[in-house]
Amino acid sequence: MDIMESKSPAQIREMIRQGQWKDPTSGLCRGYVQANLVILPREWAYEFLLFCVRNPRPCPILDVLDAGNPEPGIAKGADIRKDVPKYRVYRDGKLEDEVEDITHLFTDDMVSFLLGCSFSFEKALMDAGIRIRNIDEGKNVSMYITERMCKPAGRFSCPLVVSMRPMTPEQAIRASQITTRFHLTHGAPVYMGDPQGLGIKDIYKPDFGDPVTIEKGEIPVFWACGVTSQLAVQSAKIPIVITHSPGHMFISDLRDEELTIL
Amino acid sequence: MDIMESKSPAQIREMIRQGQWKDPTSGLCRGYVQANLVILPREWAYEFLLFCVRNPRPCPILDVLDAGNPEPGIAKGADIRKDVPKYRVYRDGKLEDEVEDITHLFTDDMVSFLLGCSFSFEKALMDAGIRIRNIDEGKNVSMYITERMCKPAGRFSCPLVVSMRPMTPEQAIRASQITTRFHLTHGAPVYMGDPQGLGIKDIYKPDFGDPVTIEKGEIPVFWACGVTSQLAVQSAKIPIVITHSPGHMFISDLRDEELTIL
Repeated sequence: MDIMESKSPAQIREMIRQGQWKDPTSGLCRGYVQANLVILPREWAYEFLLFCVRNPRPCPILDVLDAGNPEPGIAKGADIRKDVPKYRVYRDGKLEDEVEDITHLFTDDMVSFLLGCSFSFEKALMDAGIRIRNIDEGKNVSMYITERMCKPAGRFSCPLVVSMRPMTPEQAIRASQITTRFHLTHGAPVYMGDPQGLGIKDIYKPDFGDPVTIEKGEIPVFWACGVTSQLAVQSAKIPIVITHSPGHMFISDLRDEELTIL
Repeated sequence: MDIMESKSPAQIREMIRQGQWKDPTSGLCRGYVQANLVILPREWAYEFLLFCVRNPRPCPILDVLDAGNPEPGIAKGADIRKDVPKYRVYRDGKLEDEVEDITHLFTDDMVSFLLGCSFSFEKALMDAGIRIRNIDEGKNVSMYITERMCKPAGRFSCPLVVSMRPMTPEQAIRASQITTRFHLTHGAPVYMGDPQGLGIKDIYKPDFGDPVTIEKGEIPVFWACGVTSQLAVQSAKIPIVITHSPGHMFISDLRDEELTIL
C-alpha cells in the first residue's frame, strides 16, 4: 500500500486502465481530489446540471465534459471511459451491469459529470487530528436516505443522502470549521445530533455502507453525500446512465487544497 | 432616499412594477441581494448554464427558473418580467432595445438566470470601514475587458470582465478576507496591482462605467464582474436575449449574509 500511496494520479489511472487495479480507491493518491462520476445522454444533461446547481451540497460540480469528450479538464491525458476501476450501468433507472470499461457504451452524445467526494475533507480532518471512525474500523462510511427532499430539476427528484461520522461535540465544531473550506467536496455538515431530525429511524441501520460504533459522549455528524446524485439519475428513468461503482472513484490531478474556498 | 432604504424588497419590486421607480437600484434595500439577470431560450440554456458553472467567479448562479416561470425562488411573488426597472433586449447578439416590461417577449420557452452582483460585498466592505471610491465620488464602478479568456462552453466564449476599486495594500488584504466569504457574489479579488497583468492598457479609460481617482499609495484591486455574462450572451449570437440594463438590478428577498460561505 505504501508503494501505491506514492504513485501519481496519472500512474494510478494508467494501472486502472491496464486492469492492474480493480479495487476501491480510498487511500490512493492521498491529497489528490477523487470524484463521483455520472455519464448520461446530452438530452438529459441540462436538467441534471440544473439539479446539481440547485443542490450544490450533495452534488458539487468539479468538471463537466463536452458531449463525446472522454478527457476531463482536471485530469490531462485521462480517459473517463477506462480510468475508473468499476462502473455501474443503469438502464431506465435500473442497475443492469457492473463493468471495468465503458468504451463500447460511450457515444458522441454522452456528457460526463465529475462531482466532489468526501475523501478530500476526510484527509483534512485527519490532518487536524480528528479520527474517522469508519476508517479506523476498516468499514465503509454509514450513509442514510433522509426525509429531506432535494430541490427538483425537471425529471430529477430525490431525497438528500447523507454520510455520518461520530464525533465529540468539540470535534464536531472543529470539523464544521475545517469542512467549510471544502465547499466543492460537500462543505460543512448539514446536520448533527438526533438522527430523527433527518427522519433516520435507526442510526445503526444505514441505507448504504456499514454501521460504525458511536462511543458514549459522541454525536452523529452528517454531511451531504454524493450518492444523492445516483438516486437522482435513477429517479429520472434515463435510457442509459453510467456511474462509478461505490467507492471506485475517478482520481483527478487536482490537489485537495486547490478546491478550498480559503 | 431614506424612505426608499427602509422599504422591503417586495415593496420596491411593487413600485418598480407600477412604473414608480425607473432608476438604478444601487443603495436600495441595503442588506438584500441584488442580481444580474439573463433570460434566453431553452435551446441555449444548457450551454449558458455550463458557461456559468465553468466560470463561477464572474457568473455565480443564484437562481435558475424553469422555462416559462416568471417567479424566482429567491423572491416570492416577484415577476421577473416586470420587476426590473430597465431591461435590454438583444437580437442576434446586438442590442436592439431598452424597455421597462418584457411580458410581451417572455414565452413558455424562456429560461431566466439570476447571477450574483458586487453590491453584496461592497456593503460588507463598507461595514468593515473600507470606503468604496466610486461610491464616494458618485460614479459607476470602473470595469475593464481583460486579456484573460473565460472557459468557453459551446457557443459561449468571451474575455473576463473585471471591476476595480482602489485601496491601500492593507485594505486590499482585508478586502480579500471579507470578499472570500461572499463566494456567490464574485468572491475574493482575481488580481491586484499592475493593470498590465490583466492586459489593461490605461486604468483611467475603463471599458464600462467611470474612471475613479487612484490616490498615492493605493493599488487597483480587481474583482470578476457580472458584465462578463452580457459579453458571453452577445458572443453566442442568440436570436433573442433579455438582460437587466446595467445598474438596474433585480432585488431578491435573500439577505447578503445568507450567501456567505462562513
